Amino acid sequence: VPQDPVARGQLRYCGKPLANRSRFAVDKRCFDVAGHAGRCSDFPYLKHLAREAKNVAEKIKRDATKTTGAAWLSDDAGFNRVQRWAMLLPDDEVLRLAGVDMTKLSEGVQRKLRDKAATYDDCIHVAQGLTWLAYGMAGAPAPPRDIGDYLEALFGPVEPGVTSCVICRAPLEFSLFRLARRGRAEIESAHKNPRVHTPENVGFAHRFCNIAQGDMTLDDFYEWMETVLRRVGRLA
Amino acid sequence: VPQDPVARGQLRYCGKPLANRSRFAVDKRCFDVAGHAGRCSDFPYLKHLAREAKNVAEKIKRDATKTTGAAWLSDDAGFNRVQRWAMLLPDDEVLRLAGVDMTKLSEGVQRKLRDKAATYDDCIHVAQGLTWLAYGMAGAPAPPRDIGDYLEALFGPVEPGVTSCVICRAPLEFSLFRLARRGRAEIESAHKNPRVHTPENVGFAHRFCNIAQGDMTLDDFYEWMETVLRRVGRLA
Repeated sequence: VPQDPVARGQLRYCGKPLANRSRFAVDKRCFDVAGHAGRCSDFPYLKHLAREAKNVAEKIKRDATKTTGAAWLSDDAGFNRVQRWAMLLPDDEVLRLAGVDMTKLSEGVQRKLRDKAATYDDCIHVAQGLTWLAYGMAGAPAPPRDIGDYLEALFGPVEPGVTSCVICRAPLEFSLFRLARRGRAEIESAHKNPRVHTPENVGFAHRFCNIAQGDMTLDDFYEWMETVLRRVGRLA
Repeated sequence: VPQDPVARGQLRYCGKPLANRSRFAVDKRCFDVAGHAGRCSDFPYLKHLAREAKNVAEKIKRDATKTTGAAWLSDDAGFNRVQRWAMLLPDDEVLRLAGVDMTKLSEGVQRKLRDKAATYDDCIHVAQGLTWLAYGMAGAPAPPRDIGDYLEALFGPVEPGVTSCVICRAPLEFSLFRLARRGRAEIESAHKNPRVHTPENVGFAHRFCNIAQGDMTLDDFYEWMETVLRRVGRLA
């Protein structure tokens, strides 16, 4: 049975406020455990990966907290990457804070940006979930004790080799993070429902699978496959 | 049973040489019927669509004879669109005639361009096949008698409503040619085997389906679907 980052438990967080360096107001706070040593941070679970596999840690931070842009970047895309919580603000606030007039963007682009909106808390939870999934990949480095405990308290045992592509469900190798064609990683973060940004709904997927799913929900995509296979006579 | 543009018959062509205006030597000739009236042309079967639905006629010509580029266009893409027969020439000829040094392109881009190579004759046959398929779409204009006879002699009856997406096999509406999102048509030409450019292997497909198939052959793509559905427990 493939694993999903479904919340299985809770942690008592430190919760001290963190400085917000972005244009968009948000109550950032420390997600390290209550009474922790050292500096406060909202990504303490990424400290080890940031040393062992910097690109993976950065990818997790970026995909968890920002809208994507590369795939549909163009003159009228408005933002390349922007904090997901900014997309919860009304148009006039976005204009005032970032100088981008959402109403001037095409309807499709506006929808695409708004679809990626998520609260700061959901973004942090997605980062936690993706970190747990990365450690669950075959060939992943083992987390240090404190980070292992942290992630296990939230999502259950960290077992290398059980993380699979959220779409095709084949096991994912940690080494795929390093492979990239034409600047694009072979592993992408993927949403079962493209409009929901929570750990239960976000995982890693092969680039091919993620592109194939497109804008569909994963359930719709599987149903589409069934319909196609039925039409071509490969399914009764 | 969905139709495919499989050659069912032959035509006696005029065959008179046509001027070649491109950089790449090719023996262009007239593909109108022997003894035809009017000017010689290698696209006589597109004359009616060029008046009734110019974008469709141009798309057929372009997709049949040129490599695509938009999807992977970048600084090192070498060509945006180039005649498919040019990609049959050795590297030094391409450099001499077009000023593009293929050996300077990444291996992936070189392969992508070379995969799209096709003879002039195959390109014309693909254009004929795509024209026949376009007239077979629900809501397509009826071809004038001479063009209908021409296409039927090659591929069999032109029956509106029988042309389906070559990938998902759902019927295709001619009106979809007009719909475009972000400048990209909702109908694309698609290859069952991405590396074979013949009428039997080329058809029209939904943009979504074509993107989903990616670089796979259609058979591999269907097999991939079966594997996925089996993994997620939707298929025994």
